[in-house]
Amino acid sequence: MSEPASTSRLGPRSVIGILGSGQLGKMLAQAAGRLGFRTHVYGDDAGPAFDVASAHSVGSFTSLARLDEFAANVDVVTYEFENVPVVAAEHLAKTVPVLPGPKALAVSQDRQVEKTFIRGIGIPVAPFMGLASAADVTAAEAAMAAWSGPAILKTARLGYDGKGQLPVATPADVASAWRDLGSVPCVLEQRLAFACEISVLAVRSLDGAVATFDIPRNEHSGGILRRSIVPSGLPAPLEAEARSLAGRIATALDYVGVLAVEMFYLGPDAATPLVVNEIAPRVHNSGHWTMDACVVCQFEAHIRAVAGWPLGDLSRHSNAEMRNLIGREVDEWPRLATAPGTCLHLYGKREARDGRKMGHVNVLSPRSPD
Amino acid sequence: MSEPASTSRLGPRSVIGILGSGQLGKMLAQAAGRLGFRTHVYGDDAGPAFDVASAHSVGSFTSLARLDEFAANVDVVTYEFENVPVVAAEHLAKTVPVLPGPKALAVSQDRQVEKTFIRGIGIPVAPFMGLASAADVTAAEAAMAAWSGPAILKTARLGYDGKGQLPVATPADVASAWRDLGSVPCVLEQRLAFACEISVLAVRSLDGAVATFDIPRNEHSGGILRRSIVPSGLPAPLEAEARSLAGRIATALDYVGVLAVEMFYLGPDAATPLVVNEIAPRVHNSGHWTMDACVVCQFEAHIRAVAGWPLGDLSRHSNAEMRNLIGREVDEWPRLATAPGTCLHLYGKREARDGRKMGHVNVLSPRSPD
Repeated sequence: MSEPASTSRLGPRSVIGILGSGQLGKMLAQAAGRLGFRTHVYGDDAGPAFDVASAHSVGSFTSLARLDEFAANVDVVTYEFENVPVVAAEHLAKTVPVLPGPKALAVSQDRQVEKTFIRGIGIPVAPFMGLASAADVTAAEAAMAAWSGPAILKTARLGYDGKGQLPVATPADVASAWRDLGSVPCVLEQRLAFACEISVLAVRSLDGAVATFDIPRNEHSGGILRRSIVPSGLPAPLEAEARSLAGRIATALDYVGVLAVEMFYLGPDAATPLVVNEIAPRVHNSGHWTMDACVVCQFEAHIRAVAGWPLGDLSRHSNAEMRNLIGREVDEWPRLATAPGTCLHLYGKREARDGRKMGHVNVLSPRSPD
Repeated sequence: MSEPASTSRLGPRSVIGILGSGQLGKMLAQAAGRLGFRTHVYGDDAGPAFDVASAHSVGSFTSLARLDEFAANVDVVTYEFENVPVVAAEHLAKTVPVLPGPKALAVSQDRQVEKTFIRGIGIPVAPFMGLASAADVTAAEAAMAAWSGPAILKTARLGYDGKGQLPVATPADVASAWRDLGSVPCVLEQRLAFACEISVLAVRSLDGAVATFDIPRNEHSGGILRRSIVPSGLPAPLEAEARSLAGRIATALDYVGVLAVEMFYLGPDAATPLVVNEIAPRVHNSGHWTMDACVVCQFEAHIRAVAGWPLGDLSRHSNAEMRNLIGREVDEWPRLATAPGTCLHLYGKREARDGRKMGHVNVLSPRSPD
């Protein structure tokens, strides 16, 4: 893959190209707009980002002709989701910078590659084993028996919000779980008992500077993020270590933009208190609180990075709790619109399907003393 | 003029129509987008608001056919500037709600009507006299002699950012100043010695609830707003009085949306410490700090009001200083992009002409104790 031409600093009215028309693309486009950029969103359907962009195109992510038209109209390309086909990113990168770069995409699209990469730079991950074909089942059963305790089987590719995952109670259940996931390449991981889940939103600029937002503690339910709470309540040295791990990953990927690194905190007595669960080469739901509680939010930080700008001040002025509005929960908006300290964000999606992220609120309160 | 049909509460994906494509229209459109609304901007040229709206139309504000097309595509109409022709607002109001209502437009488009209205509801304004024709010059000279001290002559219509204004040192200068302003209808006002200028951003909802943002102290130079600083430093009872005056004006106008009320503070010893200078039936430059320092900003509050929503929490979490970037000052953006506590807003205008508002920064600091 050709490396993108060195992006010079893009000036006002440059055009930020965004692949993906969902809520992350929408919030990226709005942040770009605030900085005086124009935006062009490319999506395979007309999602909410189209409503706030300067221009938009509907096209498949595999239509090179449509992608060429898009590339001709933008000064840089970024994306809202990690499943942009690498072939599309490679094709675009021939004519326009694509940031974050293709390496981050390739690594994060396959759980086995991702975990192997993270472990390879000396950062703890849960014990795991690839399960690519039926021939691997016996070895996976043996590995699980050696870890002891329950495991999780995850498809190597295209999982999100708990989709493509099944719990595995005993080694004898590995084979049936793999069949239930369609016998596609999977990763079997030890299910770790953790004290809490956190995430680090790291940002790396084009010149290699790394900064991190304050760290949220995240609560999931049914595989979907429900709440992110800042400050996390974790001890400061542990947060410093988490920031450092995320920065090391960003640097090792030669990353540009916001990188989300999800971690488990296993508790103070664990040999490795922090274990990286997964990374996302993009802005992230657990960073939505930054929109209302920080000087520069994750969306603006990402746009600044891909535009070759300095990252700015990511500091937090308020405590924040982000709550997702999922499916019909969005119907609560009239009550939420009057709630004290409550910043309401509605994505403007047409249909409130079950499990669909329809909006979020950031509830602010005065910043606790450090 | 027909009153608009009672607006029911608009739901997500409703279309907010915005007259005017400048930076205020842009920031209104971005706020509407955050709430899940779509936006349609109508401008007489392709201004920055076009870059962030769901749809846009170029048309004259007097083309009823173009306005009809616009009206057919939106659920409510609001505007970013007070010089929307009343005939256009009246025409639109036949088929779609226009908020704030036509009364506010009519009153604020003519300084003499505006000052007469404000004085008429018992609120102090500077001594003034209309100067509609040459026949009024002698009376204006006499009025000025009676006030004592210098005066200002302002065109009754279409002034902004100090344009259409001339200082008048002595009564003998009235006639020449009036000629220099083109012998159009003017208002002669006593120039008051004031301690400082403040503004109240009041918001009134469709059901008549009034709320106000915290009060900025404003600094002008050459007739253009340079800085707005919050908190203002004024005594709390005086701020309470200022909020009350602005609320009375909003209610008397049967207003819906954000109303900006500029006031002079004449000092503690004045008979009337607060005097209203002028009003603007729209979001206002002196409220830009609310974008980064309040739970709900002036743009969102305005959109909420015209959509029939509750106003939400307008409280302020940080101290703020807003500085305008005027003309070539915008070239400082690379330095401002790294400054601590600094939220950067660039409007994306094509040309940095002298005196043109190109962007602003909001510099945040921890909120002072009340």
